[in-house]
Amino acid sequence: MKEIIAIIRPKQMNSTKKALDELGLPSITATQVLGRGKQRGIAGEINVDLRPEEIDQAKYRTMPYIPKRMVTVVVPDKDADNVVETLVRINRTGQVGDGRIFVCPVDDALRVRTDEYGEKAIL
Amino acid sequence: MKEIIAIIRPKQMNSTKKALDELGLPSITATQVLGRGKQRGIAGEINVDLRPEEIDQAKYRTMPYIPKRMVTVVVPDKDADNVVETLVRINRTGQVGDGRIFVCPVDDALRVRTDEYGEKAIL
Amino acid sequence: MKEIIAIIRPKQMNSTKKALDELGLPSITATQVLGRGKQRGIAGEINVDLRPEEIDQAKYRTMPYIPKRMVTVVVPDKDADNVVETLVRINRTGQVGDGRIFVCPVDDALRVRTDEYGEKAIL
Repeated sequence: MKEIIAIIRPKQMNSTKKALDELGLPSITATQVLGRGKQRGIAGEINVDLRPEEIDQAKYRTMPYIPKRMVTVVVPDKDADNVVETLVRINRTGQVGDGRIFVCPVDDALRVRTDEYGEKAIL
Repeated sequence: MKEIIAIIRPKQMNSTKKALDELGLPSITATQVLGRGKQRGIAGEINVDLRPEEIDQAKYRTMPYIPKRMVTVVVPDKDADNVVETLVRINRTGQVGDGRIFVCPVDDALRVRTDEYGEKAIL
Repeated sequence: MKEIIAIIRPKQMNSTKKALDELGLPSITATQVLGRGKQRGIAGEINVDLRPEEIDQAKYRTMPYIPKRMVTVVVPDKDADNVVETLVRINRTGQVGDGRIFVCPVDDALRVRTDEYGEKAIL
């Protein structure tokens, strides 16, 4: 199994969730993070990335870090490439700030309610 | 060493922390996440999972994602099964939304204050 | 590649970002977490760790958990030791609550905008 971690624009959350759902992968975890890439969160990115209330927050903070969403999904090895390609397709605008995807190993998974483990726990 | 990541109901946090403490594992990290499983965060789950203020939040968002807590603990390999079993025992209600547990490999750990590393850093 | 996860004091965020930037690693992700170590978040730690508004929060919660920042950076294998040493140097005060660092394996990385993958995606 692989854990696929995508750092994406907040406004791409809904399309990302929909795309994963259509792949048969409705089970995701999402959280708010601050991030920056090699452009160090340049001001120009703000107009592309943020909702109005977040632009105000970012200005107030005067921090060159950009609110992002981190979306995590654990998938069978055989599905990993397809999930990564889908996340790229949905999240690519071609502008700085499109984010990054990391693929990490997972040793085991378990569904708390049922004792299902391994790939049964994630499908 | 293993990183054990549990996605659990917010209201199970205190019992989960207490149980890990009783195992001799007081060192944990917790964060707020939004998640859903294969039931896609059905409305029925809301009454089971949420504190009153979170139900209002969830309704307002009209998003089929449920506030969860992500609890992370890094443990020696030999303790991993016991920790997973404890997390299941504490967090199983038998109802949809009990959450999931992931076990991931960790190459090394370091306590910043003391230079202790490996298993010494996590105990 | 390695994912280096540092659980640090909130007030050490700026110096940590600056130090990683000076290493040529401006790309980081940060999030707010609650944590405690083997001292179980003793009250004495609060004065060392927190901003005034967070002390109030922590008192109100009466929870022996301390607001921390989790900083994540993905680096080439060859840079991992140097990054860990830098994080320790910047974040060590010698007092309880200096935090911990975990090093985890990463199978692959991808920059969404460009299709760069592997080490090219993280530099």
